[in-house]
Amino acid sequence: MQKVNNITIIGLGLLGGSMGLALKKKTKAKIWGIDADKEHLQKAQELQIIDAATTLNNLHKSDVVIIAVPVNKIPEVAKEVLNQVQENTLVFDVGSTKHSICEAVKDHPQRENYVAAHPIAGTEFSGPNAAFDSLFENKKNIICDARLTNPKILKKAVELFKVLGMQTDFMESESHDKHIAYVSHLSHISSFMLGKTVMEIEKDEINIFNMAGSGFESTVRLAKSSAPTWTPIFIENKENIIRSLDEYIRNLQEFKEHIANDNEKAVFRIMEETNYIKEILD
Amino acid sequence: MQKVNNITIIGLGLLGGSMGLALKKKTKAKIWGIDADKEHLQKAQELQIIDAATTLNNLHKSDVVIIAVPVNKIPEVAKEVLNQVQENTLVFDVGSTKHSICEAVKDHPQRENYVAAHPIAGTEFSGPNAAFDSLFENKKNIICDARLTNPKILKKAVELFKVLGMQTDFMESESHDKHIAYVSHLSHISSFMLGKTVMEIEKDEINIFNMAGSGFESTVRLAKSSAPTWTPIFIENKENIIRSLDEYIRNLQEFKEHIANDNEKAVFRIMEETNYIKEILD
Repeated sequence: MQKVNNITIIGLGLLGGSMGLALKKKTKAKIWGIDADKEHLQKAQELQIIDAATTLNNLHKSDVVIIAVPVNKIPEVAKEVLNQVQENTLVFDVGSTKHSICEAVKDHPQRENYVAAHPIAGTEFSGPNAAFDSLFENKKNIICDARLTNPKILKKAVELFKVLGMQTDFMESESHDKHIAYVSHLSHISSFMLGKTVMEIEKDEINIFNMAGSGFESTVRLAKSSAPTWTPIFIENKENIIRSLDEYIRNLQEFKEHIANDNEKAVFRIMEETNYIKEILD
Repeated sequence: MQKVNNITIIGLGLLGGSMGLALKKKTKAKIWGIDADKEHLQKAQELQIIDAATTLNNLHKSDVVIIAVPVNKIPEVAKEVLNQVQENTLVFDVGSTKHSICEAVKDHPQRENYVAAHPIAGTEFSGPNAAFDSLFENKKNIICDARLTNPKILKKAVELFKVLGMQTDFMESESHDKHIAYVSHLSHISSFMLGKTVMEIEKDEINIFNMAGSGFESTVRLAKSSAPTWTPIFIENKENIIRSLDEYIRNLQEFKEHIANDNEKAVFRIMEETNYIKEILD
């Protein structure tokens, strides 16, 4: 990898924090941190996620700037960062939606320095306490609209993700947002609504304790995810999410009708066909 | 535990097979097996899940008979088994629905020998190949309508589940079916429909491969479950399942409306409130 002396991470939650820990472990760069939340910033220093705190006005020495703030904040921060970068600075974000971010920076004079990335990695936990250095290992990364990035900067980004243990694929940002609505955002909503539905009926918590098996725990895991992270994602990607939810609800309604009509054949067939997900995932 | 010399397991899939392996490891009993599927029966012998095959007409020597067939088959098999048992024989099933089974045996002259059990244990895999001896360790077991079982027989059952590593709780069968619809059956349907919805849109599988993170894998895991096992469960418990699905769909619709209306506050509040599932599960 090209030599990197200074890396600044803006937003020190699960993703930004884990980037800090992984980059400290795997590179010799000095890691600087910025976070609007003072407690997070202090925690990141205590946990040695970053070497030192810095500010948005002090980015000119950074070879790499990583934007890991909630997706609705990324466009503003990205533009502010791009205003200050040097010729070879790599700036990338790690947001779960990509199209509105790409739109926001597309006419910026430093657009060539920007990489719209989405490392497909996360857990249901959040904040610097949740960060760990192996979060990105053996995960996929997606870079969107790469044709708008300077090839040298792009190469630097791909190499950096490789150092973190990630393999990069390329997509158009619109296509990314459409697919990720199904594969990630819909999973989160289905899980949140499962948790909500079960808690509404199971007012006597003891029944959940006693009867919840590993299946429920697995399906409801994402309902532990962070509201501050996911609210802006759902709003940003609302068109795709609404479409995916409409299709999900239609499938649920149809399956319910088959059960109501004792249509064992249809219930069986739908499940058996859906079992094909094994081949895709395993 | 009271001495047990002979145990017969009817149905040698994931649950029956794992019972066989665990009981062979933890007791000195001889394990006999019955399965309508000849391949399963042969496989169970190859895998040493059972010591020998037997038949439904040959149960009089068994101290314990375990019924681990699909839930719609349990009533018929249970009655046939009860017709043949000795005074001290324990007969139990491990089905995921309990009320219709309890109704089916309630007037049987040997009802006292019967224990309607539901060990809350399983994986998304099925058949004797999926069986493993630690499936039941540190899991909960639920026994329904225990007042209808002879206290000595009941004690024997609770001890046997303890040997398998399970703690037993007691519920009425109607209440069991109502709660399990939310905590287990609804999870399976939400997961199956998630898998179906994603596969319908993602006809180009490569996108699922590339973009599916650990969150999707966790939420869709139960969509790998066995259609032969789950079809009769959904039909047997349809009233409770339909009610749970109606509430789930209503919650999805409402959340969708909030997203469509850019109602960030409501989206945030619902997720934050649902995060309480952490306290319940952890």
